[in-house]
Amino acid sequence: MPAPEARVTVAVSTAVFGVRADASGAPRLHVALVPRMREPFLDRWALPGTWLAADEELADAAARVAAETVPGPVRRLEQLAAFGAVDRSPTGRVLTVAHWALSPALDDDGAAPSYSGGLDVAGLPAGVHVRWQRADAPPAMAFDHAEILTAAVARLRADLPRAGVAHALLGPSFTLAELRAVHEAVLGRTLDAANFRRATLATGVLEETGEVRAGTRHRPPKLYRYRPADGAPPPAAPDDPGDLS
Amino acid sequence: MPAPEARVTVAVSTAVFGVRADASGAPRLHVALVPRMREPFLDRWALPGTWLAADEELADAAARVAAETVPGPVRRLEQLAAFGAVDRSPTGRVLTVAHWALSPALDDDGAAPSYSGGLDVAGLPAGVHVRWQRADAPPAMAFDHAEILTAAVARLRADLPRAGVAHALLGPSFTLAELRAVHEAVLGRTLDAANFRRATLATGVLEETGEVRAGTRHRPPKLYRYRPADGAPPPAAPDDPGDLS
Repeated sequence: MPAPEARVTVAVSTAVFGVRADASGAPRLHVALVPRMREPFLDRWALPGTWLAADEELADAAARVAAETVPGPVRRLEQLAAFGAVDRSPTGRVLTVAHWALSPALDDDGAAPSYSGGLDVAGLPAGVHVRWQRADAPPAMAFDHAEILTAAVARLRADLPRAGVAHALLGPSFTLAELRAVHEAVLGRTLDAANFRRATLATGVLEETGEVRAGTRHRPPKLYRYRPADGAPPPAAPDDPGDLS
Repeated sequence: MPAPEARVTVAVSTAVFGVRADASGAPRLHVALVPRMREPFLDRWALPGTWLAADEELADAAARVAAETVPGPVRRLEQLAAFGAVDRSPTGRVLTVAHWALSPALDDDGAAPSYSGGLDVAGLPAGVHVRWQRADAPPAMAFDHAEILTAAVARLRADLPRAGVAHALLGPSFTLAELRAVHEAVLGRTLDAANFRRATLATGVLEETGEVRAGTRHRPPKLYRYRPADGAPPPAAPDDPGDLS
């Protein structure tokens, strides 16, 4: 058994996902990435992260990273997995405990805000600009972060049917078309509108707000919200770090 | 951002599950546990583990722990999650990357071997005897290992429908009753025999070996095996450490 002195440095990374408009205005799944300002991997993009302080809980560190990276609330922070390949960093053995979280996408007007100009957020050195990048087509990434991102997207897609996941990506009220757009953005494929409407309403988790989305159309679409009991986060999954700290 | 010098010690733990006979001879889900031989938590039971060496991959460390704990092959080693609560160890900050693995249960005679007398395995100090303990009713455990075990059992149950999980708990051939017994042991509840038989055969993943289980019964039951294509491990899950190292 190796001695505990043969230490490994521990980091925490957080992939914050949001549905944001791309250049054409279409809602797409994005992830908040940070450009590397120094070697190794200068100018590549990285998941935001931090060293784990000896007195900081994993979930707290992951939440701090998210709060320092993306403005506004972050929802459903969960642990993804530990990534600790011996050669993942050229500067020494670093194990990172990767987390993922969701940033609400749609404001009350149903618009998918574009942050393509970069985010001004606290907690980062001057000159470092977080950007929302396409989660399924990210730019060249540092370390093994492309691998971590791929695993995080897969987990998000697998968890999409769970109560509250799509909810966490939406504003407080939304049309069925907006809900479908979030599902399509996460899954990276189009869904049949009529089937989606039928299946979603059949679950009973939504209720009408009694209002409609004002717009230019002849029949403005109804607004929905999650019923309170179903909109609450489900019981923590086994790998939810909320259980562990 | 805290300095990387504020280090956390990294360990790796492995929950090895097997279906083994309890005192009454009934197949039950067991987990291999090690008694604590010193403080803290003297005489409590722990998941086997190791410190992570700076040059050892996570999956290799987890596999080494399993091999030093349980005789025979270990299958489907996967990462569960990192457990790193600040107060989980009274002797300092230790983060453990928990894994789980499966030990085949049934020998070619279909018997569920009992290891209740303790396991003689290499790699442990003299006098330390690993025991198979009931996974759903373990003895008093050290650290947060009861929490880790609960999460590992939940993951195993959730993964049971995946191709190869039940297979990994069985011998090369088995009767449908033996396969059902493994499912019942993992899930901790009885299943309807006729429904299980119908649903299992409908999946098409099994084929008859052409042989029967010799025994005392009037109609000896047929033996089955997994079809090679389906018996192979499925594509690695996103959190499979095999992807990461």
